[in-house]
Amino acid sequence: MAAAREQFAAGGYEGTSIRGIAAVAKVDPALVHHYFGTKEKLFVAVVAPPADPGELIPQVMSGPVEEVGERVVRMFLTVLESPATGPGFRALLRGALANDLSARLLREFFTRQVVRRLTAALDSVVPAAEMPTRASLVASQIFGMVLMRYLIGLEPIASMGHDEVVAAVAPTVQRYLIGDLT
Amino acid sequence: MAAAREQFAAGGYEGTSIRGIAAVAKVDPALVHHYFGTKEKLFVAVVAPPADPGELIPQVMSGPVEEVGERVVRMFLTVLESPATGPGFRALLRGALANDLSARLLREFFTRQVVRRLTAALDSVVPAAEMPTRASLVASQIFGMVLMRYLIGLEPIASMGHDEVVAAVAPTVQRYLIGDLT
Repeated sequence: MAAAREQFAAGGYEGTSIRGIAAVAKVDPALVHHYFGTKEKLFVAVVAPPADPGELIPQVMSGPVEEVGERVVRMFLTVLESPATGPGFRALLRGALANDLSARLLREFFTRQVVRRLTAALDSVVPAAEMPTRASLVASQIFGMVLMRYLIGLEPIASMGHDEVVAAVAPTVQRYLIGDLT
Repeated sequence: MAAAREQFAAGGYEGTSIRGIAAVAKVDPALVHHYFGTKEKLFVAVVAPPADPGELIPQVMSGPVEEVGERVVRMFLTVLESPATGPGFRALLRGALANDLSARLLREFFTRQVVRRLTAALDSVVPAAEMPTRASLVASQIFGMVLMRYLIGLEPIASMGHDEVVAAVAPTVQRYLIGDLT
């Protein structure tokens, strides 16, 4: 795991191989495959996200596209306030802010696990080339909300009810995802 | 300074007095007044903001109210990218995330130095009672942009030109400040 973390952070996802990780860890590549499966699975194990975008994104993307912003905001409020996933999510964000290596891993994770899935899910509504920009704008609003509500505790956003947060923030996310940005 | 920091963080701005700080520091209150002036000035010295909201907010609020969102976003891009103020701003945010005491000071600072000035500046456009909510929403978007662009370095928002960031983010800030939130 330490070797994989180091390699993914230094070389990015594409620049990293199970063979290279095994060499650093001084084990047989077959052993890495045995314990972690694919490179993709090893990468996810290294980042250890508190929730799986492979499950959450299809959920959030199913339903009327005019309400996708609302579903995204509600999903994050639920994930952040669940005892099973909230602490891990906050720790991931704090880690990425304290440590360049963790920030690099989070960026790779975002590109590989989030942007690609959003691109596929919205391919009939949004040109694929726009999705990285749109996804990074959504991240700026969602992580900014998470920052103020859960990490800094700025009032009143820290104690607003879900419906109030959604009424304020969902139109922003909706526009960033599928609206006019020019 | 250490005594003042401790007292402001523990008791908030309203709950702190120069007399109390002087007692903790075991000096005469007159000495604190001599070196730091008013309680307000001492508070600002403790938080050590890289830029003075007392100067920036009046600048940003003067001009057409339909473009206030754009002026806010451009001001933050300028402050964050200036060698004189950028590093201090990023350090302030990192500090507030790493340390509860710093987070508490930042919240007090935001309420005393930012929200009150915004309330006064926009009192003909927005009811005073709405300003804390509006200001915390603006903070969520602006600090989220700062987080992704300058601290995490998420692409493409990390390397977008100013005009592109403004085109995307200014309408959000405009709506949070003076638009319809329900």
